[in-house]
Amino acid sequence: MAIITLTTDLGITDSYLASVKGAIYSQLKEVKVIDISNHIDPFNIQQAAYILRNCFKDFPSGTIHLISVDDELAINKEHIAVKANNHYFIGADNGFFSLLFNDLKPEKIVKLNISLTTNCMTFAAKNIFAPAACHLARGGTMEIIGTPIDDFEVKKMELKAVLQKDMIRGSVIYVDHYGNAITNIKKDEFEKVQKGRSFTILFGREDEMITELSTKYKDVSTAEKLALFGENNQLQIAINKGQASKLLGLKLHEIIRIEFK
Amino acid sequence: MAIITLTTDLGITDSYLASVKGAIYSQLKEVKVIDISNHIDPFNIQQAAYILRNCFKDFPSGTIHLISVDDELAINKEHIAVKANNHYFIGADNGFFSLLFNDLKPEKIVKLNISLTTNCMTFAAKNIFAPAACHLARGGTMEIIGTPIDDFEVKKMELKAVLQKDMIRGSVIYVDHYGNAITNIKKDEFEKVQKGRSFTILFGREDEMITELSTKYKDVSTAEKLALFGENNQLQIAINKGQASKLLGLKLHEIIRIEFK
Amino acid sequence: MAIITLTTDLGITDSYLASVKGAIYSQLKEVKVIDISNHIDPFNIQQAAYILRNCFKDFPSGTIHLISVDDELAINKEHIAVKANNHYFIGADNGFFSLLFNDLKPEKIVKLNISLTTNCMTFAAKNIFAPAACHLARGGTMEIIGTPIDDFEVKKMELKAVLQKDMIRGSVIYVDHYGNAITNIKKDEFEKVQKGRSFTILFGREDEMITELSTKYKDVSTAEKLALFGENNQLQIAINKGQASKLLGLKLHEIIRIEFK
Repeated sequence: MAIITLTTDLGITDSYLASVKGAIYSQLKEVKVIDISNHIDPFNIQQAAYILRNCFKDFPSGTIHLISVDDELAINKEHIAVKANNHYFIGADNGFFSLLFNDLKPEKIVKLNISLTTNCMTFAAKNIFAPAACHLARGGTMEIIGTPIDDFEVKKMELKAVLQKDMIRGSVIYVDHYGNAITNIKKDEFEKVQKGRSFTILFGREDEMITELSTKYKDVSTAEKLALFGENNQLQIAINKGQASKLLGLKLHEIIRIEFK
Repeated sequence: MAIITLTTDLGITDSYLASVKGAIYSQLKEVKVIDISNHIDPFNIQQAAYILRNCFKDFPSGTIHLISVDDELAINKEHIAVKANNHYFIGADNGFFSLLFNDLKPEKIVKLNISLTTNCMTFAAKNIFAPAACHLARGGTMEIIGTPIDDFEVKKMELKAVLQKDMIRGSVIYVDHYGNAITNIKKDEFEKVQKGRSFTILFGREDEMITELSTKYKDVSTAEKLALFGENNQLQIAINKGQASKLLGLKLHEIIRIEFK
Repeated sequence: MAIITLTTDLGITDSYLASVKGAIYSQLKEVKVIDISNHIDPFNIQQAAYILRNCFKDFPSGTIHLISVDDELAINKEHIAVKANNHYFIGADNGFFSLLFNDLKPEKIVKLNISLTTNCMTFAAKNIFAPAACHLARGGTMEIIGTPIDDFEVKKMELKAVLQKDMIRGSVIYVDHYGNAITNIKKDEFEKVQKGRSFTILFGREDEMITELSTKYKDVSTAEKLALFGENNQLQIAINKGQASKLLGLKLHEIIRIEFK
């Protein structure tokens, strides 16, 4: 049974999300529709890309990911379907895919040409993405629903950490609901610069510092701060059983520096 | 596989919603239970009816919709099952169905007579509606679980827009989570009064006005206000990528006037 | 088709919950994953135990309940799987199970020894509990995934109501999203002390009192207070269509006294 996931800013209080699910089940009964998140901040493609990038590989090969964030059709913001890493992605080409595929090479991209069965141009998730997803879930080819795009360019839009000989300078790119501040500093980058040296992680007014890495939150006492590379191999600053973001002032875009000596 | 949808004020933080789902799956394994919304404001049958009315037709024929809002049994507030438009609806006859079936004719209505398997009278969704829904999902008839009601009267409870020769006067009946203010002014009513004439949509202190209809949000620039008939053919006042309700003071029940000339 | 339920503090805004679901469906396609609640307050095992205890019996026999709250492995906080009442439970032995099994005898308990397929020690729900749950869902035995524990002791951690000859003294142990204040005073305890006598339920500054039990909320007028034994046979103080917790000051841990005469 095919799986269709939803990453949307549709919320869960209105009828919109239910309409999308109803439309999918009306077209294809034997399918599993799984919510990734329907709580993306309206129009926040960065957040949507971060969340989907961190979990899509946990789903089976062939899963179809429907993304409905800022998806109203516009000139230069076409609706596309993408195959990458043996998963399918359907959404608007509004910059989201460049964020999602930061280090992933799409295998195939088509511009959707599903004819609208409605005059309503404001609900692509239901009227365009759901039929496209059902088509792929039935085993249909991408060529049937779209025109191949050959010159799709993944723009490197993500703000990367700056690596120097004795220093890494990154920033907080996501705060999760535990208050963990996740940075754009990656494990392999860290190790390349570190070369086994000791280091100091600095942030805030730079009187906060961490000089070692933890492997789990409980490596430090309750309410103590720590740094670890999480499941996604990105450095996060956390507090064991506490809200690091609030308590350490680590909001989105805050700077994190690591000095090596 | 049958589909049972849930429209409830049970919330998603307590055990109640899980109990309803558990009860359904205990009685019928091969069923899909889909949340429409479990975030209805407690006892708000207007909101529940608005949301379900806007999406139930997106589900396949034969879908069973379980509604648990203000559903405690009371004299003159009986539990009923309704067939309409080839969908089934199960809930309390507390005014909800008159709101839901505003312009829909129920085909059949029964008063539920499922004997309680519990002494608990406060949890109809689990103890009464779930067994009734499972019965229908198995293909059982309405007559088995209830006594036909012949004299059910759909009371016209919804506040309709007032149509005059040169003016329509409606109000905001729902604000979605994007902040779009949805009114009770319908597309066909608008066109009947308009007869091709130009118009001005007025609201707030009446210094806010809109003189044309958009077909999508992006027809205007970011942060500009607009009016469009959405998927449900009701006029909404919106701001492209902004919260119209907050920024324009368009709360629930606010008046919208349209003047034609 | 097996059912796996989720009771977690993972929230629904990050990628974590989706990763757990993806991991389950990647290992076992024919399974139903049902959310009990993913809104447990971070690390609040009392809340998680209360919610799961109130609804797990509504699910079919053989259901597998995955609990992810404060589940990071630590010395003396091992990961376990438990069979009780013909249901399976997988989580961390951090006190949660003593709260859950307050009056239930576990049939079998194993300490999980699933080898980690990842270096990430911070995501037990995905890396340890999901594989264990899928193993049980496939019909596998507990012995394959763990080492039997014989000396597991259910510590009586729950604060019980104090029963005296003419008085019961309990407290609010949960406030639901309607604002109903649920106490630890149980129906059978109440009846044992009452012996048919009249009584007064006192709380707050003790000028609030209730002298009879209701069987449903609507037994009293809208906005009136009432006391009833709910579905879980625990006494709750409520207001018909109102927020008892707020209006009567019945927060968590507030004392409720019942005097009999």
